[in-house]
Amino acid sequence: MGSKRRIGIMGGTFDPIHYGHLVTAEAARHLFGLEQVIFVPSGRPPHKRESRVTPADERLQMTLLATVNNDNFIVSDREVRSKRMSYTYDTMRSFHQELGDEAELFFITGADAVLEIMQWRKIEEVADFCCFIAATRPGYRLESFHLSPKLAENIQFMEVPALAISSSDIRRRVAAGEPIKYLLPEPVEKYIAKHGLYLAQDGCGSNFAEESVVK
Amino acid sequence: MGSKRRIGIMGGTFDPIHYGHLVTAEAARHLFGLEQVIFVPSGRPPHKRESRVTPADERLQMTLLATVNNDNFIVSDREVRSKRMSYTYDTMRSFHQELGDEAELFFITGADAVLEIMQWRKIEEVADFCCFIAATRPGYRLESFHLSPKLAENIQFMEVPALAISSSDIRRRVAAGEPIKYLLPEPVEKYIAKHGLYLAQDGCGSNFAEESVVK
Repeated sequence: MGSKRRIGIMGGTFDPIHYGHLVTAEAARHLFGLEQVIFVPSGRPPHKRESRVTPADERLQMTLLATVNNDNFIVSDREVRSKRMSYTYDTMRSFHQELGDEAELFFITGADAVLEIMQWRKIEEVADFCCFIAATRPGYRLESFHLSPKLAENIQFMEVPALAISSSDIRRRVAAGEPIKYLLPEPVEKYIAKHGLYLAQDGCGSNFAEESVVK
Repeated sequence: MGSKRRIGIMGGTFDPIHYGHLVTAEAARHLFGLEQVIFVPSGRPPHKRESRVTPADERLQMTLLATVNNDNFIVSDREVRSKRMSYTYDTMRSFHQELGDEAELFFITGADAVLEIMQWRKIEEVADFCCFIAATRPGYRLESFHLSPKLAENIQFMEVPALAISSSDIRRRVAAGEPIKYLLPEPVEKYIAKHGLYLAQDGCGSNFAEESVVK
């Protein structure tokens, strides 16, 4: 295990990406000795089927802007480019196929999302070559949750203070005309303004009405 | 009241300044329509008499680096330059004298600090020309607390998600060799590394106490 390459895969909608995500990736990189962290913005996330999500290209570009000056961070468009719905299961399998057995994979995302992923039927297969890092807000309490011993062994919880920042709150702020400065990198802030993302919508066409657990 | 200039005074040790402080100042500026926010790093804060604090000059410089690219933010060295211990009471009086009656002052700081300040004998005098903005972490519960009606009227609570970031946690991280990236502006991160601030201490030889070399 010692000589394997350790690669982090940071999953999320990144709508928009913010310092909570970046602090999480950086903490995981340090804590688990990861060689690099690959950010994988989701395509059409299955759990957000019903809700409108910002076009994948825009989320991809914001992710790029937020990570470009960190040598250890990379962005992958594999979920965004995929025609099919994205499941963590498929994503991790494709990374495993590409990087081979000598790479140990760490899937990093919010604790709520990790616990949701753990419910999926085929997830035990992924646990053979992948460890899950579940980032939590301070004071987060894990709900009683049934996990097989194999899965339980493959989850690590990691408390991240800045995770109190949330994408849904940032969208709400933009819609309300409130500042989002210092919650996310300046280039992302500028991108949001330039492209008019998250502005208040009139009528019933809300783009965040169906907000799900993953922020 | 409508035509008065509204000026925010952001008090704190800023050891070091981080995104929690900056988000707080920006939120207060927006919410209370402040023309500008003046950051006032404390000199020798009375409530930290016993503890070692980073030299005032270094805290002042970090505050400058963190705020320089925001046109609405200013840094004042009045507490740092003062030979006496700094009390919020004196600071607000000096700003009031300088800016005159046509300026309405808003003192912004963490809720715990505000409640501490409210205990002081002379604070009712300041409440004549100053409003207090108490920033809280999400989920913060106000302890039952006795305030005179005049003071109670002069306190506004404001919830700030990014306030889960804390200076003490950042110092602990640096001492433990953990990353602080994305918790504070990059120039401040670089300053801390360059000046060797917050490194683990061996024995009783503290690097907080020593004069630093300008690099």
